[in-house]
Amino acid sequence: MTTGPVSAQALRRLLSPSRLAMVGASENNLFSRRAFQQYQRVGARRELFLVNPRSPKVHGVETFPSCQAIEGGIDCAFLLTPQHATLTALADAISAGARAAVVLSQGWAEQGAEGLRRQEDLVAQAREAGVLLLGPNHLGFVNLWDGVAACGLGLDLPVEPGHLALVSQSGAVGSSMVGYAGRQDVHFSYVVTTGNEAMVTVSDVVHHLVHDERTKAIAVFAETIRKPHVFRAAAQRAAELGKAIVILKAGSSELAAQTASAHTGALVGDDKVIDAVLRQDGVIRVKSVEDLICTGALCAEIGPLRADGIGVLSVSGGACDLLADRGQDLGLTFPELSAKTAKRLEGILPSYAHPQNPLDVTGGALADPNVWRQGIEAFAGEPEVGLIAVVTSLPTPGEPQRDDTFRAVGETCAATGLPGVIFPQIDQIQSEYVRQVKSDTGVQHVMPSVERFSLAAAGLTRWSKWLRTRSNSAEALGGTLPPVRLQEKVEPLNEQEARDLLTAAGVPMVPAQLVSTRDQAVAAADALGGAVVLKVCSSEVAHKTELGGVELELQGEAAVGAAYDRLISRARSAGVHLDGVLVSPMRRGGVEMLVGVTRDPDWGQVLAVALGGALVEVLQDSALRVLPVEADEVRTMLNELRGRRLLQGFRGSDPADEERLVEVIMALAQLAQGLGDQIESIEVNPLWVSGKQIEALDALITR
Amino acid sequence: MTTGPVSAQALRRLLSPSRLAMVGASENNLFSRRAFQQYQRVGARRELFLVNPRSPKVHGVETFPSCQAIEGGIDCAFLLTPQHATLTALADAISAGARAAVVLSQGWAEQGAEGLRRQEDLVAQAREAGVLLLGPNHLGFVNLWDGVAACGLGLDLPVEPGHLALVSQSGAVGSSMVGYAGRQDVHFSYVVTTGNEAMVTVSDVVHHLVHDERTKAIAVFAETIRKPHVFRAAAQRAAELGKAIVILKAGSSELAAQTASAHTGALVGDDKVIDAVLRQDGVIRVKSVEDLICTGALCAEIGPLRADGIGVLSVSGGACDLLADRGQDLGLTFPELSAKTAKRLEGILPSYAHPQNPLDVTGGALADPNVWRQGIEAFAGEPEVGLIAVVTSLPTPGEPQRDDTFRAVGETCAATGLPGVIFPQIDQIQSEYVRQVKSDTGVQHVMPSVERFSLAAAGLTRWSKWLRTRSNSAEALGGTLPPVRLQEKVEPLNEQEARDLLTAAGVPMVPAQLVSTRDQAVAAADALGGAVVLKVCSSEVAHKTELGGVELELQGEAAVGAAYDRLISRARSAGVHLDGVLVSPMRRGGVEMLVGVTRDPDWGQVLAVALGGALVEVLQDSALRVLPVEADEVRTMLNELRGRRLLQGFRGSDPADEERLVEVIMALAQLAQGLGDQIESIEVNPLWVSGKQIEALDALITR
Repeated sequence: MTTGPVSAQALRRLLSPSRLAMVGASENNLFSRRAFQQYQRVGARRELFLVNPRSPKVHGVETFPSCQAIEGGIDCAFLLTPQHATLTALADAISAGARAAVVLSQGWAEQGAEGLRRQEDLVAQAREAGVLLLGPNHLGFVNLWDGVAACGLGLDLPVEPGHLALVSQSGAVGSSMVGYAGRQDVHFSYVVTTGNEAMVTVSDVVHHLVHDERTKAIAVFAETIRKPHVFRAAAQRAAELGKAIVILKAGSSELAAQTASAHTGALVGDDKVIDAVLRQDGVIRVKSVEDLICTGALCAEIGPLRADGIGVLSVSGGACDLLADRGQDLGLTFPELSAKTAKRLEGILPSYAHPQNPLDVTGGALADPNVWRQGIEAFAGEPEVGLIAVVTSLPTPGEPQRDDTFRAVGETCAATGLPGVIFPQIDQIQSEYVRQVKSDTGVQHVMPSVERFSLAAAGLTRWSKWLRTRSNSAEALGGTLPPVRLQEKVEPLNEQEARDLLTAAGVPMVPAQLVSTRDQAVAAADALGGAVVLKVCSSEVAHKTELGGVELELQGEAAVGAAYDRLISRARSAGVHLDGVLVSPMRRGGVEMLVGVTRDPDWGQVLAVALGGALVEVLQDSALRVLPVEADEVRTMLNELRGRRLLQGFRGSDPADEERLVEVIMALAQLAQGLGDQIESIEVNPLWVSGKQIEALDALITR
Repeated sequence: MTTGPVSAQALRRLLSPSRLAMVGASENNLFSRRAFQQYQRVGARRELFLVNPRSPKVHGVETFPSCQAIEGGIDCAFLLTPQHATLTALADAISAGARAAVVLSQGWAEQGAEGLRRQEDLVAQAREAGVLLLGPNHLGFVNLWDGVAACGLGLDLPVEPGHLALVSQSGAVGSSMVGYAGRQDVHFSYVVTTGNEAMVTVSDVVHHLVHDERTKAIAVFAETIRKPHVFRAAAQRAAELGKAIVILKAGSSELAAQTASAHTGALVGDDKVIDAVLRQDGVIRVKSVEDLICTGALCAEIGPLRADGIGVLSVSGGACDLLADRGQDLGLTFPELSAKTAKRLEGILPSYAHPQNPLDVTGGALADPNVWRQGIEAFAGEPEVGLIAVVTSLPTPGEPQRDDTFRAVGETCAATGLPGVIFPQIDQIQSEYVRQVKSDTGVQHVMPSVERFSLAAAGLTRWSKWLRTRSNSAEALGGTLPPVRLQEKVEPLNEQEARDLLTAAGVPMVPAQLVSTRDQAVAAADALGGAVVLKVCSSEVAHKTELGGVELELQGEAAVGAAYDRLISRARSAGVHLDGVLVSPMRRGGVEMLVGVTRDPDWGQVLAVALGGALVEVLQDSALRVLPVEADEVRTMLNELRGRRLLQGFRGSDPADEERLVEVIMALAQLAQGLGDQIESIEVNPLWVSGKQIEALDALITR
C-alpha cells in the first residue's frame, strides 16, 4: 500500500505556527521550564500562549485557563499534559481552532497493545477535526529561521539559524545530537523529532523540508522508515535540488523474513535492501551520531563538489599519513599532482619537502602563511581537486600564526572558488575564539578531526559523484513495461515453464530438451553431442542438487541412461512428482553468476546480481537494487562486485561481453516487473558467462 | 639481521634521570619556555640545570654556561639547541658525565641524504661515549610517576600520573594525543616520542615499559616498526603480564615489494603482514588517534575481562539500538539473558519494558537508582557477561539524579566485582564536575561516546579472549625443526623436485608420473584409468596455465596423445626447456585452497592459507601468520576465512577433515622453516580438499 506524503500546507501549519499554545505549562514541570526557555532562546518570534487552569502566572507570564479562552484562537497546540489528560486537552485545542498539535507525552504505542489502542483513539480524534499531530513520545520541534520552538530539547541547542535540518525519530538521540552540534558550531534550519509517528513520519518531514529554501542538507536519525515511497520521492527531489540527505538508520530491520525458497532471499535479508535503496537514491549513510551531524553539516556548508579529489595541506607529516590511510580505507581520492604543479610547489617548499598530495608544507608554513596560499593556488589548478582540506591546530589566543593560517586558507579558497575545510588532527570542540577567527577570516568550514573529516568527506564525495552521473529517467521506465500474465495456478512453476517465460523475455537459456523416457534422454544427449547434464524437472523441487536431482558430465549412451535411471529412482524415493527430465549440454569454465529478483514488503522488487554460482551464499559477493533500474545502474552493480576481475578476462580467459550481460540482466529485471505481484521471486543461477557466451543454465520462479 | 633491545639500564638512565640538564634554555625559545613549564607542571621531582652561556638567568632560574660547569655532573642532557650546535653541545654533556641525551632539533635524516649523514655522525659520537640518544626530530618524553619531563609536548598534557604509557614516533601527533587525553581524563605513566629513532625505537621503548609496574597498558603510534623482533618479544612479554598493547600503525608499508612469481606474494603485500603479526601477537590495532587513546585507557583501567559479553543498561532505547548496531559491526557480544535473570528484571522494570540485553531501563531509572543497581546485579549473575556498559548523560551541577546514577553504578560494580564503564550517547569531553562525581562515586571509567566505547570494547574483548586462549609454546616450536638442505643451484626447482620435497615432509601429493614421450604419457594415463591431467614440468615455468601448459579432462589414448603433442609444441614455440610432462588423475568437485609460505624482509616467513584455487587473487579470502605457528593458530586461520562454510560440508558435500587439513598445512609450514633462507617461497595451489581426501594438485618452490 502506498500512502502519499502529508501535505505541505498541513506541515507548514504545524512547523511554522503563528499562534502557539503551550498547554500544561507549569513551574513544576521540567519540560515546561525548558520549553519556555527554548522558545525565548530561539527568538520567540511567534505568539505564544501558556495554558494552565490552576496558576494565573507561569514562567512569569499570564496564563489562560484553556485554549478556548485565548482570544483570536490558536493554530497549533503544544501539549505538555500527561497521557491521560491528552484527549481532553486536544478537544479544547480543536475548539480553539488548532489544526496542528505536538504531543510530547509517553504512554502510547511504545507501551504495547493497550497503548496502541489509546494512540489510535487520539489519532481518530485528530483526524476527525482535520488536525495534524506530531508525536507522541518525542521531544517536539524547533524552527530556527522563524524563531519558534515547541520542544523539550536540551538548552545547548545552538540558536543561530543554519542550513542543516535534523529529523530524528528518537527524542533522546535528537537531543544529544543538538548538544553535539552546538559544541561543533553546527547550525540548524529545523530540528524535528517524530517519536511514535502516529500521523507524521520522518519521510513526511524530509519530503517537506527538501523544499525549504533555507535548508541545504537534511540529517536523519531513524529506526524505521515508514512510508518508504515518500522517502524515495523526497530523495529524488533532493537530488534534483542538489541537497544531500544523510541518514543514520539504527535498529534491527523490520523487513519481513524473506522466504528461503530462492537463494536470492539469503542475499537480500536484514539491512541489505535498505542499504541498496539508499545507495541507489544517493542518500549518504553513516554509522554514528557524530558522523550524522558532521557529514550533514559539511554537505550543508559545501554542497556538491566539482570533482571528487581532495587536496590536503598539513604542517604535520603524521597527519598526512593518518589522512592518507583513512582516506584509502574510505575511498577518498588524493589526486596526484601534475608535473607543472609539482614544479610550482618545489619553488615554495623547503628543499627537503616533497611536492605531493597530501602535502606536508612543513613547519615553515607557520612562519610564512604564503606557503598555504601558494599551496592552495597550486591545487586549484588541478581539475581533479574539488575540495581543499587543511590539517592544523585550531587557533588559541596568543598564537597569531594560527590565525594567519586561517586567513590564508579563507582568502585563497574564496579567491580560487575551491571550498576549503580546516580541522585538527584529533577530536576537538570549537572554542568561542575559533568561531571568531573563522568568521573573521572567512574560513568556510571547520571540523573536529581528521577522522570525522575523512568519514564526512567520503560521504560528500560519493554523493557528489552520484549526483553528477545519475540519470533522471528511472521513474519513467517503470510505467512502460508490458505486463506479463501467468495462468492462475497455485503451485510454483517448473523449470520448463520458467525457461519459457525467460526465453520469451529475451534471456538466453542453455538448450534443454524435456524428456520422459530413458530412450528419449539418450537420443537427446546424442543429438547434442559431447558431455551433457540431466536434471529433474518438477514444480515440487526448488533446490535440485539437494535432492540429488542433477547429474553432470555424462558422455555416451550407458552413462546417460544410467543417470536417467538414477534421477527417476531418487525422485520416486523422495516422493516427488516429476514433469520430466531436462537434457542440456554440459558447460565448463567461464564465470557463474546469480541474477534474481525477489520481493521486499516495504521497498518492492529487489534485483540481486552476484558472483559464485553454487557458492553464492558462501561468497556473499552481491549487489542489490530496487526496481526499476536502468542499464547504467546495472553496470554500477557489476562494478560493486568484489570478484569483478573474473569478468574482465582473468588469467588468459576471454573478458565477458559486459554489454550483453547488462542486456540479459535488464531482460530478467523487466520480466520481473512485467510479472509484478504474480510472482514472489525469479532467479537464474547459474548464469554462465564465458566471453561472449552468456546462458542461463538454470531458472527458478516462485509465486 | 636481528638486533636486540636497548638495555633496561640505559633506558632507565634516559627516562628517569636524577640530574637533567636543559641545554639551550632561553626565554626566546618557545620550546624552552614550554619545556620548563612542563617540567614544573609534572612535579619537578628530579634536579634540573639550565644551560645557557649568554644569559645568567632564564625562566627565573640561574643558568650554567655549560654542562661541564655543573658541579656533580649530569645523567642526561636535554638538547634544545639547533641542529648545527648539537655535536658541540653533546660533547659538553658527555664531558659532564651524561650517558643519555634527548635531541629535539630537526635537520637530520628526515631531510634526506645529507641530513642522514649528519645523523650518523651524531650517533657515532654518542655511541663512542656510551650515550643513549632519544630522537632527533621529536618532542622528547615525560615520566609522570617520577615527575620528570624533557619534552616540547603541549601544556594540556594531563599531569596526574596514570597507568597508560604512550609511545609515539611522531612528536606532533603525540602532542595532539596528550591534549585529547587531558580532555578525556586519561592519565599516563610515560609519554615518549621517538622521532627519527637514531638509537631508540618504538620497539625498544615498548619492550622497556612493558616491565614498568605502574604501566598497565601501552598505546603506540608508529609509521614504521623498526626492530620487529624486539616488538614481538615485547608483545609476548605483555601477554604474559596481562598488559595490552594498542597500536595505530600509520603510513604506507615499508615492506620490500614481494616477488610476483608466487601467488602468495599478492596475498601478502602491503599492510597485511603487519596486520597478521599484530593479530597473532594479541596487539590491538586501531584506526584513529582517538581510538588509540580511548582503547589504551580502557585497557589500562579495566584490564583483561573474565568473559567477552557486555551487559548494557541505558535510559534511551535509541542508545540501545545504536550500541547494538555498532556492536554487531564490530563483533561485540551482548549475551542473551537467562530466563531467571529476565524474570528478576521483570520485577524491577515497568510492565511495558523488555528484560533483554541491551537493557532499556526506561526513564523511571532516573527517579529510582535502584533500577540501575538491580539491573547490574542481574547481569552479574550471567557468567557470559564480563563488562557492564551504562549509557547515560554525564552529570552536570543541579541534576542530582545523574549523580545518583553514577553512585549506583560505581557501588554495584564494586560490590559485584564486574568492571563498569559509563558513557554518553554522543561525543563529549569530561568536565571538572564529571571528574569529581566519578571520583566521589567510585565509577571506574568514563568514556566519550557510544562510538568510542564500541570501538574500544571491541579491542578489549578480542584481546581478552586471545589472552585466555593463547598458547605459550610457539616460541619453542621454531627451534626444534630439522633443517632441510637443498642442492646448491641457482635455478628454481621444477614441479617434480617440489613434489619430492613436499612428499618427504608429509604433504600428500596427487599421484603424478613424469614422462618424456607421447607413448609414456598414454601408458601412464592408461595405468591411472579415468580422466587425467597433463602438465608441463619445467623449472623455467612458474605459471603453467598462462603458457597453456596444462591440459585437463583427458580420456582415451587419442585425447591424451594429442594433448601431449600440444604441450610439447607450445613449450617449443615459447622457447621453454621442459624437464618432462606430468600425468596425474583429474580431480573434480571439492574445495580448492592455496597454502603457501613467502618471505617478508622484516617479519620473516609468512604462511598464507586461502580459498579459491585459481580464483584466489580475485576472492582475496586469506589468513596470514608469521612462522612458527602452532596447530591451534592454523585452526584459527581456517576460521578467519570468509568462505569457511565451504569446508563444513556445503549443500550436501562431505565436510572437510579439518584435523587432517591442519596437519597438512603444518607439514608445509615446517618444511618451509626447515628450508629457511634457501627458498624464497613455497606454494601448493590448489590444495584439493574433498571430505577426507586432501591432495596437493600443484606445487611451486622458488628460491
